[in-house]
Amino acid sequence: MNAESIIRRKRDGQELSQSEIQELVKGISNNQIPDYQLAAFAMAVYFQSMNTREISDLTMAMAYSGKVMDLSGIAGIKVDKHSTGGVGDKTTLVAMPLAAAAGVPVAKMSGRGLGHTGGTIDKFESIPGFQVEMEYSEFIEQVNLINAAIVSQTGNLVPADKRLYAIRDVTATIESIPLIASSIMSKKIACGAQGIVLDVKVGQGAFMKNLDEAQQLARAMVNIGKETGRQAVALITDMEQPLGYAIGNTLEVIEAIDTLQGKGPDDLEHLSVEIAAYMVLLGKKAASIEEARQKVKSVLQSGQGLQKFLAIAAAQQGKIDVQKPFYGFGSAPVLKEVTVDESGYIAGINALGIGKAAMLLGAGREKIGAPIDYSVGIKLLNKQGDYVKKGQAIALIHAGYKNLKLAEELIRNSVQVTTEKVKKTPLIIDTVV
Amino acid sequence: MNAESIIRRKRDGQELSQSEIQELVKGISNNQIPDYQLAAFAMAVYFQSMNTREISDLTMAMAYSGKVMDLSGIAGIKVDKHSTGGVGDKTTLVAMPLAAAAGVPVAKMSGRGLGHTGGTIDKFESIPGFQVEMEYSEFIEQVNLINAAIVSQTGNLVPADKRLYAIRDVTATIESIPLIASSIMSKKIACGAQGIVLDVKVGQGAFMKNLDEAQQLARAMVNIGKETGRQAVALITDMEQPLGYAIGNTLEVIEAIDTLQGKGPDDLEHLSVEIAAYMVLLGKKAASIEEARQKVKSVLQSGQGLQKFLAIAAAQQGKIDVQKPFYGFGSAPVLKEVTVDESGYIAGINALGIGKAAMLLGAGREKIGAPIDYSVGIKLLNKQGDYVKKGQAIALIHAGYKNLKLAEELIRNSVQVTTEKVKKTPLIIDTVV
Repeated sequence: MNAESIIRRKRDGQELSQSEIQELVKGISNNQIPDYQLAAFAMAVYFQSMNTREISDLTMAMAYSGKVMDLSGIAGIKVDKHSTGGVGDKTTLVAMPLAAAAGVPVAKMSGRGLGHTGGTIDKFESIPGFQVEMEYSEFIEQVNLINAAIVSQTGNLVPADKRLYAIRDVTATIESIPLIASSIMSKKIACGAQGIVLDVKVGQGAFMKNLDEAQQLARAMVNIGKETGRQAVALITDMEQPLGYAIGNTLEVIEAIDTLQGKGPDDLEHLSVEIAAYMVLLGKKAASIEEARQKVKSVLQSGQGLQKFLAIAAAQQGKIDVQKPFYGFGSAPVLKEVTVDESGYIAGINALGIGKAAMLLGAGREKIGAPIDYSVGIKLLNKQGDYVKKGQAIALIHAGYKNLKLAEELIRNSVQVTTEKVKKTPLIIDTVV
Repeated sequence: MNAESIIRRKRDGQELSQSEIQELVKGISNNQIPDYQLAAFAMAVYFQSMNTREISDLTMAMAYSGKVMDLSGIAGIKVDKHSTGGVGDKTTLVAMPLAAAAGVPVAKMSGRGLGHTGGTIDKFESIPGFQVEMEYSEFIEQVNLINAAIVSQTGNLVPADKRLYAIRDVTATIESIPLIASSIMSKKIACGAQGIVLDVKVGQGAFMKNLDEAQQLARAMVNIGKETGRQAVALITDMEQPLGYAIGNTLEVIEAIDTLQGKGPDDLEHLSVEIAAYMVLLGKKAASIEEARQKVKSVLQSGQGLQKFLAIAAAQQGKIDVQKPFYGFGSAPVLKEVTVDESGYIAGINALGIGKAAMLLGAGREKIGAPIDYSVGIKLLNKQGDYVKKGQAIALIHAGYKNLKLAEELIRNSVQVTTEKVKKTPLIIDTVV
């Protein structure tokens, strides 16, 4: 195989054949292609893009570059969800039990957070005692028993993607739609998903900063699904401001449990129900999206969703006491209000700023493997469109002893107040099927 | 310094500042920037190009990334020539003594050949006894004494360019005008040139395959000259067919000496005179190009050019006997004629094919450092436009015991014969000043 000629062909805007892509991915996996050729390839793809066939071939080659989860021991259509990452995004914690309660098997592998966006595994791990590692057989057994389980991604999954991603990260080639789409979808396919509901976040706090890019990414991933025999649906959702009010692991779990009890934030409930509904639809537990929505709302209202969440926690040794304040979770030692300097309507709450503030407090990590503090975070008291008076608290910081001042300033600077009434940005902007 | 942000800015089509470029080149020289970031940077430049200011900053930063030749001990304007590489291109061997005889100091550092194009140092070294290595003080002294000296590039010249070039070579990023231009010009500047006559070859046997690219490269290099206070002129010359009739080191030296005696091929004489004339003009030994041409023709006709060549050889221990056949050089053991299969006019002689044939015979090297056989090569007996009869010899192979059959076939396939009269391609296509 001649990596240079593959780079050259892509550089010149030519379509790579399936065998070229397979050779390339093989060379990535077995380290026969050096880092500098990967970097040049990624930059060539950045400029010349790839068509659906190429992206799908790349996705499948990366998905099968390492271990692939065998979920055939689970009956039914296995449906997964994926978010491109946002601030306060705890929808998995709500949508997963809702979909499972509505009959869809959800065998979920997930990752830890990095930077200003949280990771689902971190959130589950913030539940005291919650175990995210288990044997494969236990994982399958739990899904068969209660329709849901969540484990941390381990082992030799998608090694080619891991290597390519690490190079892209330091060569300004992250922002390539074909490479992002194939990276996400290869992981989902390697994890055994047959149906995939994608939540593509767009806005200041998200990876995709504008709607056009978000739509391109959503379309690319849905097309990969079609090309590779997986059902995929993508919602494009707003990430200008954080989702819900809670940012930080324990705070987000509490908000998720609140939502499963029907007393959570409207935006979080709305999005979680929509995602769970598409999971139900892809899992063929409803004939239409409307029927799926009704089914999900029904398990939410009946409390079956909450019971499913508690069942997952119980199966994985997590301790939750729904009767106790804070559901029995540990709380941060320092509470500090953030007030506004002027009266008016909240025009926006910069999700990136809030995410960074939470990370600085210790809720997130800047480097892979760094420890995080589950109890710290931010509880917003107001959202976009709310009227606030000068001196009124708009957020409550749950802090340890780290970066309190810095976080407070960041939060204050993230809130824009205006004298005119503000029209709320819609949460679900588009649905790509 | 953040290499990733420099790559990103170039990727996004932004203009890099002088300090960014200097930081980048520093990082290349001291190995703080890893290969993969260099590769991504080169690919970003391939797509987004650079403006004259950026190219000039890159050139100067690379020129000064290592040792820079100090030619201040030589009186007058030091003028160099550079060819982008062709087949049968022995113009340096003719133009250098002509320019020196006309009063221009030529302190030349040159390189060895690679691939199908020959290297000037290899050609000089094919003269028995010719030494291409000498002390710096001897080099300066020789130029002061006879106006000319040629040495092999040694030492730590342009280390940043060397590293960047090595990466470009394996990442499909060679073909970038700003990177080619800065690579060539940084070397010339590091070698101390104040005036530079560039011969940009275009055609099948050259690096630049089409006129548009050749003109872009020529313009880029001339602009670098303007921006950095060096005088530069570029000729764009045809390399569809080899230059002259001889290809192979010893054969080319013989043809050069023939030319200096007024009995060489018209094309070689014409181009050598033109290049030498521009060297004379840049060296301010003539007030106009027409006056410079007259001066050069005069030293050619008077035999002063030949005497200068012999003086250079004598100063560098080269043994040439102008009275002897083959000027006393060693000859190849095997001679083989290549005949044509049909009668007609020669439409073209593919320079790339002839260059590869010569390399296969041992006249060139595929890998750096490989030995070469000075005596082998090809002597064309006809050129484009000539009428040949079926069975007539069109070339004479001077071979050792290597690849004779293969070379013969390559040569035969390189000659196209047509029934219609052929208009000759002009040799000097354009002059960029």
